[in-house]
Amino acid sequence: MSFSEFDLIEKFFSGHANRDDVVLGIGDDAAVLNVPAGQQLVVTMDTLIEGVHFPAETSAEDIGYKSLAVSLSDLAAMGAEPAWATLSLAIPAYDKTWLKDFSHGFLTLAQKYNVALVGGDTVRGPLSITVQLHGFVPAHKVLRRDRACNNDLIYVTGTLGDAGLALAGLQNNLNLEPMALKRLRKRLDSPTPRVEAGLALRGLASACIDISDGLLSDLAHITNKSSVGAEIMLQHLPLSTDTEQYIAQSNDWNMVLSSGDDYELCFTVSADNKTRVESLLTASGCTCIGKITLQAGIRCLYSDGSLYESDKTGFDHFAV
Amino acid sequence: MSFSEFDLIEKFFSGHANRDDVVLGIGDDAAVLNVPAGQQLVVTMDTLIEGVHFPAETSAEDIGYKSLAVSLSDLAAMGAEPAWATLSLAIPAYDKTWLKDFSHGFLTLAQKYNVALVGGDTVRGPLSITVQLHGFVPAHKVLRRDRACNNDLIYVTGTLGDAGLALAGLQNNLNLEPMALKRLRKRLDSPTPRVEAGLALRGLASACIDISDGLLSDLAHITNKSSVGAEIMLQHLPLSTDTEQYIAQSNDWNMVLSSGDDYELCFTVSADNKTRVESLLTASGCTCIGKITLQAGIRCLYSDGSLYESDKTGFDHFAV
Repeated sequence: MSFSEFDLIEKFFSGHANRDDVVLGIGDDAAVLNVPAGQQLVVTMDTLIEGVHFPAETSAEDIGYKSLAVSLSDLAAMGAEPAWATLSLAIPAYDKTWLKDFSHGFLTLAQKYNVALVGGDTVRGPLSITVQLHGFVPAHKVLRRDRACNNDLIYVTGTLGDAGLALAGLQNNLNLEPMALKRLRKRLDSPTPRVEAGLALRGLASACIDISDGLLSDLAHITNKSSVGAEIMLQHLPLSTDTEQYIAQSNDWNMVLSSGDDYELCFTVSADNKTRVESLLTASGCTCIGKITLQAGIRCLYSDGSLYESDKTGFDHFAV
Repeated sequence: MSFSEFDLIEKFFSGHANRDDVVLGIGDDAAVLNVPAGQQLVVTMDTLIEGVHFPAETSAEDIGYKSLAVSLSDLAAMGAEPAWATLSLAIPAYDKTWLKDFSHGFLTLAQKYNVALVGGDTVRGPLSITVQLHGFVPAHKVLRRDRACNNDLIYVTGTLGDAGLALAGLQNNLNLEPMALKRLRKRLDSPTPRVEAGLALRGLASACIDISDGLLSDLAHITNKSSVGAEIMLQHLPLSTDTEQYIAQSNDWNMVLSSGDDYELCFTVSADNKTRVESLLTASGCTCIGKITLQAGIRCLYSDGSLYESDKTGFDHFAV
């Protein structure tokens, strides 16, 4: 019995492209797609590598889910509506169960956001997953990093630090209670991409980014590109009960400020738009954590106004 | 001294997006692009892995070149005009010389075809390169695999088998004269994507594919999708002098019929379009190698009409 790569791709991944803007999906040299009139195309590409972007013991289903979720999170940060994905999958060997579970995780999330898988590549190699995701945004409605203004309010969706805490627990750098680890691990392995929040923020947020490398590191992209600074109020950072407990015991705010994999949105809003934004983002939740300043740099303050000194600025694959 | 992945990407790859349809290139969560009115978007994704898609001793410049060339070849097979690329690069460690050479190979070819690099990802991992390439084709002008008709003539561009012969020489399966190996290796390491030929074939070819896995394997995609068969005349297969010599000595037609990495186009044309196609494809050259038949399957014939029996059908990453 012989499985060619073509059989393999078709077996696990075809038959899910059900959008009428797909002229030609999987099965030719390239996909052919119709971008709606008046919309700009938004494209993002992410690669996930075992041991770097997910722990080796992550389930195939969670890997499939997460490999699409991180790209959905990028499109959310642009205010874009997801449409089409391509997937390049390098796997060490043909493993039917793994592929079935991986494709289930990937395609279930794809279906939720009406994303058609339109092409890709399958090769033999060390486990590595690259997803390119395409979406649309009406011309001039895209959310960028470089438009934050002095006195804009800084918001984040959801809660921060849970994924970092889970990773520390898995790596045995921390002793976590099993139930807490289980809850936190869900946030690490299957983050919720804030697609609806991103769409709601079109025309309302002055700048937006998704938090993949840690709040400070990603907010710094906004402040640097916008030539401004920021003040963050530690007591306003939104925390899950588990992370709140950890902070109460350790005062290790770096876990919240600088650990990666949150996949929440961080965005800035003028005071005029405060009420409207808070009423629109009820599903994901959103919390005002500080404000944009003219003074450059990012300062993190305790409730008494004293400065928290952080020596880390976020996850960096090539820091030496 | 610390190089972050952001520095790294910007250092080697930014500043080359000079197309006015790029609204936002490298440096945000995603790129924002304008697809011209009346054009369909064509997207292809390919992953190259060391030891699978290129020998370990391949130069960084050739790897950079080839990783874009294979995607350009896919777009050529669709009759699409290349526009934007994204690049995901997994590298084991930060190596300035390697990155400089890789980006030089990639960007030189990109510039030749006016391709803007608009985004991507850089991660630490075993060497692996994924390129997604976007192009345009006017609505309904795309070249597909599934429209070949009985009696259509089958053509290929360039010459076949050179890359396969080079690989066999490098792997010491064959003893090649050093100068011959050098010539053949150029075909393996820096194939010429047939972009101009693909554009010229719009509205003329009934079906088209690029030969990445070997002529028989790729032509079989055309015949299967079009529900037809094919007859190939061995004496008409276009060969370089080096490959011609090898065949004269070995009669090993499998090297020409089934080895991968040619990156020539294989296409079908009705007899009515024969003269026009031959006059248009002078740069790449094109050779009629056989014809489409109603009878299913692909038959390869010697000049006396006797059948060549091939036991291979092309390169397959997951054949077991």
